[in-house]
Amino acid sequence: MRSSFFEKIPNLYFIVSGTGVGKTALNSFDFALLGAGLGNLNLVRMSSILPPYADRIDPYQLPFGSLVPVAYGFRTSNAAGSLVSAAIAIAFPKDKRFPGLIMEYDSVGESSESAEKTAEKMAVDGIIGRGLELDRTEAISSEIISHDKYATAFAAIVLCYNTQ
Amino acid sequence: MRSSFFEKIPNLYFIVSGTGVGKTALNSFDFALLGAGLGNLNLVRMSSILPPYADRIDPYQLPFGSLVPVAYGFRTSNAAGSLVSAAIAIAFPKDKRFPGLIMEYDSVGESSESAEKTAEKMAVDGIIGRGLELDRTEAISSEIISHDKYATAFAAIVLCYNTQ
Amino acid sequence: MRSSFFEKIPNLYFIVSGTGVGKTALNSFDFALLGAGLGNLNLVRMSSILPPYADRIDPYQLPFGSLVPVAYGFRTSNAAGSLVSAAIAIAFPKDKRFPGLIMEYDSVGESSESAEKTAEKMAVDGIIGRGLELDRTEAISSEIISHDKYATAFAAIVLCYNTQ
Repeated sequence: MRSSFFEKIPNLYFIVSGTGVGKTALNSFDFALLGAGLGNLNLVRMSSILPPYADRIDPYQLPFGSLVPVAYGFRTSNAAGSLVSAAIAIAFPKDKRFPGLIMEYDSVGESSESAEKTAEKMAVDGIIGRGLELDRTEAISSEIISHDKYATAFAAIVLCYNTQ
Repeated sequence: MRSSFFEKIPNLYFIVSGTGVGKTALNSFDFALLGAGLGNLNLVRMSSILPPYADRIDPYQLPFGSLVPVAYGFRTSNAAGSLVSAAIAIAFPKDKRFPGLIMEYDSVGESSESAEKTAEKMAVDGIIGRGLELDRTEAISSEIISHDKYATAFAAIVLCYNTQ
Repeated sequence: MRSSFFEKIPNLYFIVSGTGVGKTALNSFDFALLGAGLGNLNLVRMSSILPPYADRIDPYQLPFGSLVPVAYGFRTSNAAGSLVSAAIAIAFPKDKRFPGLIMEYDSVGESSESAEKTAEKMAVDGIIGRGLELDRTEAISSEIISHDKYATAFAAIVLCYNTQ
């Protein structure tokens, strides 16, 4: 019988954000992951759907080195004085048989609040564009001002699984 | 016994393409995925081999929110009047013990037909460069003209699994 | 019980590098993967942690078409006479309960030796930044001079699994 390669469908999720500063772009990204509680995991980036009936849980420490499906937005800058922001949002349709839609947005020169509104609007547009009625949104964001090093703003939705 | 982390090997695949228009680049990408029938899935992008003996099937709706291994090409533009195209091709070697090679190509200012030929040529070059004889190719592509919004052309090969 | 979506944690790894030359950027990347022994696999890129207690093994040929979690760095150039390099490094903390940190670095105009030192330094900075003491590093790199085609330098850490 044909099936998805990965048969399980994620049924839990949590939302985190963080910022980081480092001597290189990649180090600042790594420290932003740490700040978000994801720094010791193997993030597998995906585009970006919240499965129907998934339950939101509080962030928790997944086992070190786990492969973790994640949708995320981020922005890195080393321009002195830049306001760096990243946001991620989920728009949920009223019809619960359909999945939530996740959208990311990142920016330089914009507050996290503004970035979050944009991400929410993008997710809402995707739900409306599917011909569905909007129920509500959830979102998270972060911001940081870069100085003499690289600074990264990061925001993510982590998918996990309840074996019961 | 040492093994691949993911022990199964995909043994089915299907080929899809689509286009989308949206107010942001990411929204147009999302609508292109919807157009291709993949809009409610979690695409995990990989580089880009068709396992030996995999069977082609007709596209079908995978369960919402599934994690799905996909090779894809895409191009997004908001330049007024641009012809945006994306293509993906598989080249199959005569020796069926070897896998097919998948190549993506995307362009602005080129038709989907032209993009598809380029993707096919790239995949054939990869097979020849492996010292293998070419059997045949399969390909798909899409094109769209951008106007006042973002437009995305998308083409993909989806790997899935026959549990029997 | 909540758990990672992918329940297993990789417990083996190997390190490879390679270079490739091709008529397009993607073909040169594909040939670099072949040179590294990964050319017939489906690489799933992740960011980039070596799980605690994972054992290093010699590179071996995974089954064609396998999905393989990989951290990698690469650089492609077609500028005539460019020295293209890519490196990847792991820094291990003294406290073995914590994972290793993987960092990638790539460059044009720098030797593989120099790129490798940079990748090692980045990985060490990440361990120190976690408040951990450094045990040691491991690294690999590659370099190639581009001529009239595209040239890619590639370096990777492959995660796999010992079922016993």
